[in-house]
Amino acid sequence: MLHIFILFALFFSSTSHASVQDFCVADLKGPDSPAVSPAFVAQFPGVNGLGLSIARLDLAPAGVIPLHTHPGASEILLVVHGKITVGFISSANSVYVKTLKRGEVFVFPQGLLHFQVNAAGYKATAFASFNSPNPGLQITDFALFANNLTSALVEKTTFLDHAQVKKLKAILGGTG
Amino acid sequence: MLHIFILFALFFSSTSHASVQDFCVADLKGPDSPAVSPAFVAQFPGVNGLGLSIARLDLAPAGVIPLHTHPGASEILLVVHGKITVGFISSANSVYVKTLKRGEVFVFPQGLLHFQVNAAGYKATAFASFNSPNPGLQITDFALFANNLTSALVEKTTFLDHAQVKKLKAILGGTG
Amino acid sequence: MLHIFILFALFFSSTSHASVQDFCVADLKGPDSPAVSPAFVAQFPGVNGLGLSIARLDLAPAGVIPLHTHPGASEILLVVHGKITVGFISSANSVYVKTLKRGEVFVFPQGLLHFQVNAAGYKATAFASFNSPNPGLQITDFALFANNLTSALVEKTTFLDHAQVKKLKAILGGTG
Amino acid sequence: MLHIFILFALFFSSTSHASVQDFCVADLKGPDSPAVSPAFVAQFPGVNGLGLSIARLDLAPAGVIPLHTHPGASEILLVVHGKITVGFISSANSVYVKTLKRGEVFVFPQGLLHFQVNAAGYKATAFASFNSPNPGLQITDFALFANNLTSALVEKTTFLDHAQVKKLKAILGGTG
Amino acid sequence: MLHIFILFALFFSSTSHASVQDFCVADLKGPDSPAVSPAFVAQFPGVNGLGLSIARLDLAPAGVIPLHTHPGASEILLVVHGKITVGFISSANSVYVKTLKRGEVFVFPQGLLHFQVNAAGYKATAFASFNSPNPGLQITDFALFANNLTSALVEKTTFLDHAQVKKLKAILGGTG
Amino acid sequence: MLHIFILFALFFSSTSHASVQDFCVADLKGPDSPAVSPAFVAQFPGVNGLGLSIARLDLAPAGVIPLHTHPGASEILLVVHGKITVGFISSANSVYVKTLKRGEVFVFPQGLLHFQVNAAGYKATAFASFNSPNPGLQITDFALFANNLTSALVEKTTFLDHAQVKKLKAILGGTG
Repeated sequence: MLHIFILFALFFSSTSHASVQDFCVADLKGPDSPAVSPAFVAQFPGVNGLGLSIARLDLAPAGVIPLHTHPGASEILLVVHGKITVGFISSANSVYVKTLKRGEVFVFPQGLLHFQVNAAGYKATAFASFNSPNPGLQITDFALFANNLTSALVEKTTFLDHAQVKKLKAILGGTG
Repeated sequence: MLHIFILFALFFSSTSHASVQDFCVADLKGPDSPAVSPAFVAQFPGVNGLGLSIARLDLAPAGVIPLHTHPGASEILLVVHGKITVGFISSANSVYVKTLKRGEVFVFPQGLLHFQVNAAGYKATAFASFNSPNPGLQITDFALFANNLTSALVEKTTFLDHAQVKKLKAILGGTG
Repeated sequence: MLHIFILFALFFSSTSHASVQDFCVADLKGPDSPAVSPAFVAQFPGVNGLGLSIARLDLAPAGVIPLHTHPGASEILLVVHGKITVGFISSANSVYVKTLKRGEVFVFPQGLLHFQVNAAGYKATAFASFNSPNPGLQITDFALFANNLTSALVEKTTFLDHAQVKKLKAILGGTG
Repeated sequence: MLHIFILFALFFSSTSHASVQDFCVADLKGPDSPAVSPAFVAQFPGVNGLGLSIARLDLAPAGVIPLHTHPGASEILLVVHGKITVGFISSANSVYVKTLKRGEVFVFPQGLLHFQVNAAGYKATAFASFNSPNPGLQITDFALFANNLTSALVEKTTFLDHAQVKKLKAILGGTG
Repeated sequence: MLHIFILFALFFSSTSHASVQDFCVADLKGPDSPAVSPAFVAQFPGVNGLGLSIARLDLAPAGVIPLHTHPGASEILLVVHGKITVGFISSANSVYVKTLKRGEVFVFPQGLLHFQVNAAGYKATAFASFNSPNPGLQITDFALFANNLTSALVEKTTFLDHAQVKKLKAILGGTG
Repeated sequence: MLHIFILFALFFSSTSHASVQDFCVADLKGPDSPAVSPAFVAQFPGVNGLGLSIARLDLAPAGVIPLHTHPGASEILLVVHGKITVGFISSANSVYVKTLKRGEVFVFPQGLLHFQVNAAGYKATAFASFNSPNPGLQITDFALFANNLTSALVEKTTFLDHAQVKKLKAILGGTG
């Protein structure tokens, strides 16, 4: 059973202007599928002029934040509960993977592919700091399979098989 | 038969300090595979302090520049010969695709996934201008399948099937 | 009894190149004095080019991080244990003070005076994220009373009384 | 008798859109108090997009610009009349003090504490250039004693005595 | 016969919002005069936030883009048809001149004087990439001779003869 | 008689590391020529990291700072003695000219042509503040007539007469 469930919420510690925005919600059934836990994104009101922001990530026991980039910011991740396996691929195509415990931190350079995976059998929580109020977010799977980019172009530019592309487009709601 | 052949060359119009660097060369056999044409990257010597650079792209008749990002720069592509289908996926997950003829231009915002595909039965040439001397380059397929990122992590963070991951790792020389 | 004890340590989660630097250690006796807890500053090796950094703050039960500025960065503070009263004074001279519980965050704009005070009877821990690898630090008391700035100039430019200046210079090791 | 009188005026050499803004005016009586002279701040209309600004400082014979920072800009001070003792405290807590004569200049790095004191028995004039149209200004005494920051928090975060804090709050109009 | 004819046009490859703006049109008669060809400037709609832009230059057989600067951007010129002699003068007053053929590129550092001259007996086309959406343009002749800057000031600040100044003001429509 | 004499000196108010550099010295005879006064450029040692600099200009009674640009900085000019007529030409080709008295200021946007001319029968002094430690300087006459840029290219790209170009090349030491 595949639970892809990513919720982005804006909350503020010192104001009542909290807003919650559903970034993407998919709840799909299927065998041997990973579950993606909700991710809460916290941003201060008025942080726009200050050049930084922070987000909270909550990962369910089998939770995954899929491969993604932040085009507009570098990120430092701090684990405050549980264990999380994190990794990024450098511009020299080297892989940096590490399992973080509570109180440990890891840095993801701006614009590079990275991911977070719950590494224990229980809930994990982390905070991601960005050096921009608008780090942006591009989840590779959503860019490929959750819009109207044609299967033909996906296959040509990723070398993925036709059946694989069709399967993930079906799961993530893409067309074309 | 799959020809994945990407050559990055530095050449300079006004000096003899031209250098040619093989970014990646793969020459593999297999059914129904696209051919990736060489891409030549031109950069001036001493452009480091000037905040911009330019690259030349040569696409063979069935040539493809696979899905990739430039973490450090926006890009304007200018087609000078042939026809090229280009596209990018925005941070709002919208798809922008267009087939460019000679003299037409297209812009790719910094850090977002994009691609170029030869759209005619003959060679195509384009020039890519960047607003940084070091735009960087991350080709999604190479990041996933051409290094030692484990298949387990690729599958967990992309939802791709095991067989698909193993197949592309074999083609692109990845391990794990 | 006055315990002014501020320790800055560099530690790294993923390397063994951790280094610990004593920023300032003062251990002084006197009546009705607050105790300043150690503050550990964590910075990744090689974060220099990435535009951000993070520091860990550990406040003893009566711990205080005295009034200070970071000339080179804005800061987001995240409390992960205990309760901390934080505040800053804006450029319009307005005061923003709040007592943060675990999981709450607060932002300090670049260059403005701010402070952190343990608000409970037990240890508190927080993490400070900066949008610069070199945020800098200027503690007002140390700038006034822990160097050779003459008492005459301190008094003229702060309107503090002579006895007050002499008392704090004696405690903090200043001369002149 | 304490005359704390700081007037910030915007004037323009080439337009009639000059505006005068009272930044802070305090006129208070008391023994052995320094007199703070008016400071006129000159800014061009429309300098906002140009990345710099200039201010004029007029110091009465015993005039003082109290300890302050500019969070958003570095400053170069040029003395055009009289003698002014200037100083700043570096991020390494070193003190740089110098008495400037007409035609001499001094630089204050962004965000660091600094001051200006008339060093002769007659009026002095200087011009301060900033590398931002909005350098900002935070006068330490006003941040501590001229608003509603509680005396308890001032004392905890500066180690100043209760009587000293209360005295300056009374002079500068602070509450709490 | 002197044809000074510079046309700046905004066109867009992917939209119908193309706009054409006449930057400057002068059509004057006189002996032994160079002809300046139209220059078309292409800018994407919405490129404002992306930090780069591109312009197309079309030079008639005897066409010249007169001495000019771009105050806000560096430029890379790519020749796609014909031959163009380009040059700039560095801040050390050194001269860099080169005749470019099709496919060759040349860089002009931000703010420095440069020019382009058709170097063959037939039409030439080039594309200029800038690392700013607003590179700006200041043509030296227009700044001196096509407005109301008085001849007296032009002569004093350029050492040009009075007759020369009056002749070019007449041609370019300047007064004073 | 033409006296073109521009001296750039680095001096520092607080150190003995002052250095004097002759930027350009020409001493030439000729009828009805303006005299260019020495210009002293003051820069602090170590201002490199602070983002600003300052220069002192001394204009003889008939002194002129010829038409020039600073490619890397905006400038604010402050007159401290005498009267100076200043002006710049905007990117919209508008002329802004004003005669400044002591204590008046004027701003020159980055990269735009501007000049300063003594407007009285006696010595004038001014200070120029820049929002960069390296504003750069390009004097139009020197770029055209004081190097080996060929007369043919100067004439083609400026529309100046051959005799005029040859005359100024002779005065300023240019060849070609």
